[in-house]
Amino acid sequence: MSTRILDGEAFASQIHRETASRVVALSKRGITPRLVFIRVGEDPASRAYVSRKETRAKEVGLTSETIVLPETITLAQLLAQIDALNADPKVHGILIQSPLPSALPNEQVYARVSPAKDVDGFHPVNFGKLLLGDPTGFLPCTPAGIMEILRLGKIPTRGKHAVVVGRGQIVGRPLAVLLARKSTHADCTVTLAHSSTPNLPSITRQADILIGALGRPLFLTQEHVQPGATVIDVGVNRIPDTSSPRGYRLVGDVDFASVQPVAGAITPNPGGVGPMTIALLLSNTLRAAEDTVS
Amino acid sequence: MSTRILDGEAFASQIHRETASRVVALSKRGITPRLVFIRVGEDPASRAYVSRKETRAKEVGLTSETIVLPETITLAQLLAQIDALNADPKVHGILIQSPLPSALPNEQVYARVSPAKDVDGFHPVNFGKLLLGDPTGFLPCTPAGIMEILRLGKIPTRGKHAVVVGRGQIVGRPLAVLLARKSTHADCTVTLAHSSTPNLPSITRQADILIGALGRPLFLTQEHVQPGATVIDVGVNRIPDTSSPRGYRLVGDVDFASVQPVAGAITPNPGGVGPMTIALLLSNTLRAAEDTVS
Repeated sequence: MSTRILDGEAFASQIHRETASRVVALSKRGITPRLVFIRVGEDPASRAYVSRKETRAKEVGLTSETIVLPETITLAQLLAQIDALNADPKVHGILIQSPLPSALPNEQVYARVSPAKDVDGFHPVNFGKLLLGDPTGFLPCTPAGIMEILRLGKIPTRGKHAVVVGRGQIVGRPLAVLLARKSTHADCTVTLAHSSTPNLPSITRQADILIGALGRPLFLTQEHVQPGATVIDVGVNRIPDTSSPRGYRLVGDVDFASVQPVAGAITPNPGGVGPMTIALLLSNTLRAAEDTVS
Repeated sequence: MSTRILDGEAFASQIHRETASRVVALSKRGITPRLVFIRVGEDPASRAYVSRKETRAKEVGLTSETIVLPETITLAQLLAQIDALNADPKVHGILIQSPLPSALPNEQVYARVSPAKDVDGFHPVNFGKLLLGDPTGFLPCTPAGIMEILRLGKIPTRGKHAVVVGRGQIVGRPLAVLLARKSTHADCTVTLAHSSTPNLPSITRQADILIGALGRPLFLTQEHVQPGATVIDVGVNRIPDTSSPRGYRLVGDVDFASVQPVAGAITPNPGGVGPMTIALLLSNTLRAAEDTVS
């Protein structure tokens, strides 16, 4: 059996092309979608993430800007900055790069972004619309990106059993809801498993579609996988690596070398879910701009 | 094996007593929780539901009022009515009895209720907080009532496998999220199954806790149940009954006579989930009033 590699970079490029052409169409109506990043402090990983997203944004024709604020900013100052962006009709999307300093009440900050500009999909109103099945909200980018991998990869989903391992608020829980939706590209029976699930392999081996989103390096191995299953690796874990100048390397939740021989299809990592997250961020931003004229 | 009957009336009485004593405590601070029902039109079932809830509200010491509006009310008039209640500091909870006339945009009406007075837990912000795990929201009453049945019935949940049959927005989907939460009285592995699930018995027979919430009369039978499982019946279905003056009778999703001999514990229906829904509505209203002084 040969295993299909679900190439996230290629799928992301498809989405970027679609986004770019709709940006051109919208520009003819006098609107250029604008995405503003807020980064607090100088965490090197955050700098790199924002910089990568900005580069992609420019490639698809969005305008963007990064507002860098000092680690010492007060809550009132940060909220005032968000309010100003909420009120600015030239700004369509606002992304507050996590992590925020722990001294700030993170939930309150994220919830301050207008739901109509919350292109990250993290506002309670957008989470609520996801759970309610209301399509007017913005979906969180990583779960939405995984649904796009399945759609563009032509992985059958209707009536299939999807097992999501990990119940985090950013991926596992919302993804479980999306996979179960009554929709052509969803309609799965969904099991949400996690750190308290006993005998995990007996659950995961039922999966036609297995999602690793628990944040444990290389945790899912061949014993967890039904032969022929589609395996999606969401994990981004640091493990020590003295041979790297950074002192660590990034690995997923899926032990690719172990799983690949039995999987029917599998995402590489990196190059799987990560690029899709950015693609969905930019298409959300485009839609936020389109919504202002429709 | 003797089957435990999970007596929803008895559990609801426990919650009502707790609510009543906290209402007394709050009254000493000069606040009497007030719940306002809005009923549009004269649907007999709606009249009966609202009347039953009002009776219970008075029993626990809440004040309540039902505003009856004509079927022909315009959207603008209805929204103005809701806005007035949102602005009234003497009103702590607002419940819009469904169904609303189909001519009205139902989602828009429900979303007009202030999230802080949405004691039904149907506002997108409260659904979002549920999915995010933010405890400041109001939980929808039926799923929250089911969690209370499990807690008060001392049904072990941690590490157990719960199977929810039915993915409706009011019960199935939010309940699946609640059952999976990392919490002493949850922490289940959760499977959400539905009308597109093939070979349903092979899924439901894995359940330590099986929830029928699909809206099909007497659908779940002995073949769906693992011996010893806890079975919760959420269904309220009308089936024709010429011997009844109404011409129908109400039955659940669970065929009690078939399932009871194998179940370890089971809710009766009526007298299981229904009373708990009202109990949670009233405790939500109490909390809405408490929140105004804390």
